[in-house]
Amino acid sequence: MLRPTARQYEVSRPLYSEEAFTEEHEKVCRRRKTMADHAKQYFTCDSKRAKSAALSLLPVIGWLRIYQIKEWLLSDIVSGVSTGLVAVLQGLAYCLLAALPPWYGLFSAFFPVVIYFFLGTSRHISVGPFPVLSLMIGAVVTRLIPDEGPRFNITGLEDATVDEQRVVVAASVTFLIGIMQLALGVLQVGFLVMYLSDTLVSGFTTAAAVHILVSQLKFVLGLVVPGFSGPLSIIYTLEKIFVQITDTNICDLVTSIIIMVVVFIVKEINDRYKSKLPVPIPIEVIMTVIACGISYAFDFKTKFGVDVVGHIPPGYEAPMAPNLQVFQETAVEAFPMAIVGFAVAFSVAKVYSVKHDYTIDGNQELIAFGVSNIFGATFRCFAVSTALSRSAVQESTGGKTQVAGLLSAIMVMIVTLAIGFLLEPLPRSVLGAVVIVNLKGMLMQVRDVPYLWRRDMPDCVVWVVTCLAAIFLGLDLGLAVGLGIELITVVFRAQFPRCSVLANIKGTDIYKDRKDFLSIYEPEGLKIFRIPSPIFFANVEFFRSKLVEAIGFSPLRVLRKRNKALRAIRKLLKKGELQWTPKGFLVSSNQALKEPEGEGPLEDLDLPTDFQDLPVQINWSAELPAGISVPRVELHSLVLDFAAVSFLDISALKGLKTALKELIRVEVDVYIVACDAYILEKLHACSFFDDEVKPSIFYLTLHDAVLHVLERRGGNTETELHHQKVVTTATVHRPLKGWSSLRSTDKTIPGPETKF
Amino acid sequence: MLRPTARQYEVSRPLYSEEAFTEEHEKVCRRRKTMADHAKQYFTCDSKRAKSAALSLLPVIGWLRIYQIKEWLLSDIVSGVSTGLVAVLQGLAYCLLAALPPWYGLFSAFFPVVIYFFLGTSRHISVGPFPVLSLMIGAVVTRLIPDEGPRFNITGLEDATVDEQRVVVAASVTFLIGIMQLALGVLQVGFLVMYLSDTLVSGFTTAAAVHILVSQLKFVLGLVVPGFSGPLSIIYTLEKIFVQITDTNICDLVTSIIIMVVVFIVKEINDRYKSKLPVPIPIEVIMTVIACGISYAFDFKTKFGVDVVGHIPPGYEAPMAPNLQVFQETAVEAFPMAIVGFAVAFSVAKVYSVKHDYTIDGNQELIAFGVSNIFGATFRCFAVSTALSRSAVQESTGGKTQVAGLLSAIMVMIVTLAIGFLLEPLPRSVLGAVVIVNLKGMLMQVRDVPYLWRRDMPDCVVWVVTCLAAIFLGLDLGLAVGLGIELITVVFRAQFPRCSVLANIKGTDIYKDRKDFLSIYEPEGLKIFRIPSPIFFANVEFFRSKLVEAIGFSPLRVLRKRNKALRAIRKLLKKGELQWTPKGFLVSSNQALKEPEGEGPLEDLDLPTDFQDLPVQINWSAELPAGISVPRVELHSLVLDFAAVSFLDISALKGLKTALKELIRVEVDVYIVACDAYILEKLHACSFFDDEVKPSIFYLTLHDAVLHVLERRGGNTETELHHQKVVTTATVHRPLKGWSSLRSTDKTIPGPETKF
Repeated sequence: MLRPTARQYEVSRPLYSEEAFTEEHEKVCRRRKTMADHAKQYFTCDSKRAKSAALSLLPVIGWLRIYQIKEWLLSDIVSGVSTGLVAVLQGLAYCLLAALPPWYGLFSAFFPVVIYFFLGTSRHISVGPFPVLSLMIGAVVTRLIPDEGPRFNITGLEDATVDEQRVVVAASVTFLIGIMQLALGVLQVGFLVMYLSDTLVSGFTTAAAVHILVSQLKFVLGLVVPGFSGPLSIIYTLEKIFVQITDTNICDLVTSIIIMVVVFIVKEINDRYKSKLPVPIPIEVIMTVIACGISYAFDFKTKFGVDVVGHIPPGYEAPMAPNLQVFQETAVEAFPMAIVGFAVAFSVAKVYSVKHDYTIDGNQELIAFGVSNIFGATFRCFAVSTALSRSAVQESTGGKTQVAGLLSAIMVMIVTLAIGFLLEPLPRSVLGAVVIVNLKGMLMQVRDVPYLWRRDMPDCVVWVVTCLAAIFLGLDLGLAVGLGIELITVVFRAQFPRCSVLANIKGTDIYKDRKDFLSIYEPEGLKIFRIPSPIFFANVEFFRSKLVEAIGFSPLRVLRKRNKALRAIRKLLKKGELQWTPKGFLVSSNQALKEPEGEGPLEDLDLPTDFQDLPVQINWSAELPAGISVPRVELHSLVLDFAAVSFLDISALKGLKTALKELIRVEVDVYIVACDAYILEKLHACSFFDDEVKPSIFYLTLHDAVLHVLERRGGNTETELHHQKVVTTATVHRPLKGWSSLRSTDKTIPGPETKF
Repeated sequence: MLRPTARQYEVSRPLYSEEAFTEEHEKVCRRRKTMADHAKQYFTCDSKRAKSAALSLLPVIGWLRIYQIKEWLLSDIVSGVSTGLVAVLQGLAYCLLAALPPWYGLFSAFFPVVIYFFLGTSRHISVGPFPVLSLMIGAVVTRLIPDEGPRFNITGLEDATVDEQRVVVAASVTFLIGIMQLALGVLQVGFLVMYLSDTLVSGFTTAAAVHILVSQLKFVLGLVVPGFSGPLSIIYTLEKIFVQITDTNICDLVTSIIIMVVVFIVKEINDRYKSKLPVPIPIEVIMTVIACGISYAFDFKTKFGVDVVGHIPPGYEAPMAPNLQVFQETAVEAFPMAIVGFAVAFSVAKVYSVKHDYTIDGNQELIAFGVSNIFGATFRCFAVSTALSRSAVQESTGGKTQVAGLLSAIMVMIVTLAIGFLLEPLPRSVLGAVVIVNLKGMLMQVRDVPYLWRRDMPDCVVWVVTCLAAIFLGLDLGLAVGLGIELITVVFRAQFPRCSVLANIKGTDIYKDRKDFLSIYEPEGLKIFRIPSPIFFANVEFFRSKLVEAIGFSPLRVLRKRNKALRAIRKLLKKGELQWTPKGFLVSSNQALKEPEGEGPLEDLDLPTDFQDLPVQINWSAELPAGISVPRVELHSLVLDFAAVSFLDISALKGLKTALKELIRVEVDVYIVACDAYILEKLHACSFFDDEVKPSIFYLTLHDAVLHVLERRGGNTETELHHQKVVTTATVHRPLKGWSSLRSTDKTIPGPETKF
């Protein structure tokens, strides 16, 4: 092997400013697509595009054409039946979360699935009730139609029962959710879900699990607790439960505990022997059937006062139109539901699409869910998404396409139409227990917190704040708060970056933080300032203050002092107390020794120093006449490293320009290096440049700019030279004394190369 | 002058990976301050710190000690008197915005100013009513105590008049605002106002101006319009006004128009002859006095039914305690008011502090305004900030310190205590006209829109959305929406950056977008991918897809294909249909030609290819036996340019690691270059590295990494060499054929340097 340190790096090339580089290297003139081009492309229509659009709108055509009946159909049937059983159970259970009579959950596990079969691009997710979404629906429903207190007035339904009114509210909200999802899909803004980061979703779903747990306690304990909604509702619910904890129905509690323990253990076994079991044991279905049987046999309902599912009317109800009053009342709440429902389904679908190597289309998924929800809502469904556990059943039992989903829907339909009455004696506490035991995965996400704490504090804050906000303020408000915190985190990360002053690693073209390395060379009078993040409204002032700190003086203050001094000199010259001789200024009075008060407007002090009517340009580093003094500026050049500046906004442009101007006006040469091509383009487009700030300040790399500075101001750095063994045969006006300190090679550079 | 193109650039140094560099260059072991250190430093107390803390809490001590009586006092007196006149007028006028009886505005122009004198760090702002803030107070006041409809029930004040109740509400809200500001100041989070970018503030204040204009129309037209609050209130107000436009009081309208025209013209004159006028003409005060006199002389009130200021009770009212019920009811609205009030005052103060070169302290300002508002609220003031126009008067008439402010407060006090009755005949329409004519500056900010449109689209969107939201949804909600949009803009800017594939500019160490330049060299089998922005949850997937696009294949898919092929080979070997001979594989059956179905779990296909039980490692670029085929991968190395990656979050870490692993598993060497030192540190801290992803993939610069790649894989690029005139006298195992294409010099490198 080669020793890495022995490998050598050689570069010999012209020194490039951005301008010189562009001059020398022919650039391809690339025409960027304008908005109009995009629009044109978007609206262009030919038969091929029409066909592909039709195909993308009806994905079922695509995959049914390649359906391999021999290999896939059997798997799909097995999967469909298993999923169907789970879907029936979850339909009933999650319906309790939505505060609706259980059989409406069966509707939700049927109608939307049929539509998704035609429109969905995922082949593995099981569409249907999703606990978090059901709970959010439940919050709206109990807000508008509470158990106690005044109800929202739905025209035409004033005399309907609470349940009937609730169904109308739930269906109307679902309709609205569907419209929103459809609109987002048609507008192609499915990418919005990207803003829901894993951390946010984890915190949010953990909070949702807590809500679900609390909402199911009443079923498990057999208590009557009215639904609360709004901030702190979880506290009120818990209070209500603890107040009447002594009324717990022991039969319910025992049943629930047995079911939870058994289901929990068998699920662990399923997990552990995943590879050995052909199909996971459908323990929830088994336990439900058993519980149903026992409840019927021992007549739990009358003997122990257990709350059971009760009469399930066979068949479907007539379609209904959504209620517009409910739309108005719930528009703000429907939006987060539309987003959450889609986001969860999409993320589950994505996992399976990666695993089975096919593509899903976010916008088409939005359209699919939108239409599913709209269609479902007319048949009194509540909003659907997917449940992770049910999708896992569908996939792990061998489901290959949505044919399995369709079969599961048919299973649900059979229950609704024919054998629903068998479920009537099922205690609600059993459903509650099944829901709770399924929360394990969501609640265990709390383990993310120590993980994030160790790795990334801002992400940890996002998790905790989202979770707490969602628990205490409610899911919709919590989601908004979480999203806000998350966006602020991004801004925050870019807001207080660690700026650094760079210096040269001797004998190389490498520049590093001068505080980090022992042997580092900083040319005198030159500062290299690295801006390690994008610049925008929230940090532009921060950078300016850091820059002032780094260079050690405020350019504006120096400029004002100099202009004041000029005013004083002018005044003295006018008065004749000061005279200009070829040798220098001659003071003829002692009065001027006192710092003269500036006259004239304050604003003029910020203008560039103007030597026009003076006999000579003032050299600010030299002694000034008549005891006038200005702060000495040791800095002659400043290089700003823009390598990590990925964007600039208007505030940044303004701030940067002001800062540059102030520096230029006190005769500091400013250079910007490694600036992104697009940023440079933007600067030109925004007329950033003028007489003072010129495009020639841009250099290609730090080393180019530093070499340029050393060449211009070389004289000063003579004493700092190291390793100078280079013999330059150059015939330039001024020898480049500063340069050689940046080289460490022992060779003689032959003549032809050093052409200057 | 030197021709820039003739200047040459020379570097000869070892090739550095990050590891090699750290090994060779001694690093200073810097101990970073931990949270505990900061806390310790923060809570350490010695006499010096105590003294400086006391001084910073009472800035008055600092500047009173250096008060130059001779130079400053006269200016302060002149400024104080002028400001006082304006303050009286504005106090009355802005009080109408707050929907309170006019004389409470005089209170607000007195009490808070006194406190600010002691606590404030700005020497030039005139503390007192600020129109936008007054309007926001007015919105709360009219929401709780509307003209029509049910009023908020304040215990103990059930029988008070509307005005009395309103004053209690306004004072209580002000108290709450003060507490919030004080808390923010004590917690040292004054930097929060940084989030209010210039663009946001411009859009917001323009919207506020529209609201103010509309709210003053009723006074100008002499109509009775109840106050509306909440979203769309501006529409309702306008509707109410237009419905009764025929009832316009002509006297009010004519007076207003005359005043507006005169004030407007004289203000223009003031502006134009700013440098020539010693003091701007106080036209508003003059016009008010004239209007007052005329109204008294012609008895406008009874003759024309003009609404006048009316009886101003002389003297102050007894202090009051704030109402806690109002706190609960208005907490959400008070927060934006606290922020807006402070933000505006701070930005005005900052302008003057820069102009007059002194420092102001954001947190101390928060404390000052907090205490001022709390103190004021107990004396029935409403929330104060500063009005730009009044501060401009104070500064331009020569105010040097807050002594001028104190004097203006004394002027206001004199009016309250002694000569208030003189203002009684003043028509309210005059006040309205004065308010409206002062809106010019704020409304003219609409010119920012075309400016922003041309320069920066996202900023333009922020302006327009903030303005429209603030107009139609109300100021507080509008501010929240604007803030949200602004934060999203930042995320958005970083979310869809233009990734690019870089290539080498021949003969240099410069890498540019290969699409941008004609003469550019891209070594075969090597891709250089530049990530031009920070990576975080919202764009990590975007980058991964762009990367797959750039390299032209999906590494995961290739890996799966290879693992499937391996399974097939293993199966064939087991069956004996394939045999390994030293010459290669020998197929003894034709059955295997069909693509074999993969067996075993799908997940295993994503593991690294495992050659363990095979007689030989498979060369994936060669022909495979038995007709098995895998996609050919031409890429052998990938270099990721991290120069512009300023931060990574947890999602980015996960995504990056997955992407790297997938690439490494298909035998692509991945290198990361120009990575920020802090990011590298973080990667180590987050246990990013393992057996597959190693720290040795980090290189210092692009050129280092590319040279390293060419050295390792040099053989393949032989045909691509350009300008090869280098004679290497190296004695390495393999000549570095690829290297020389990156050099363009005509020289012979002497032996000692090329040690490999």
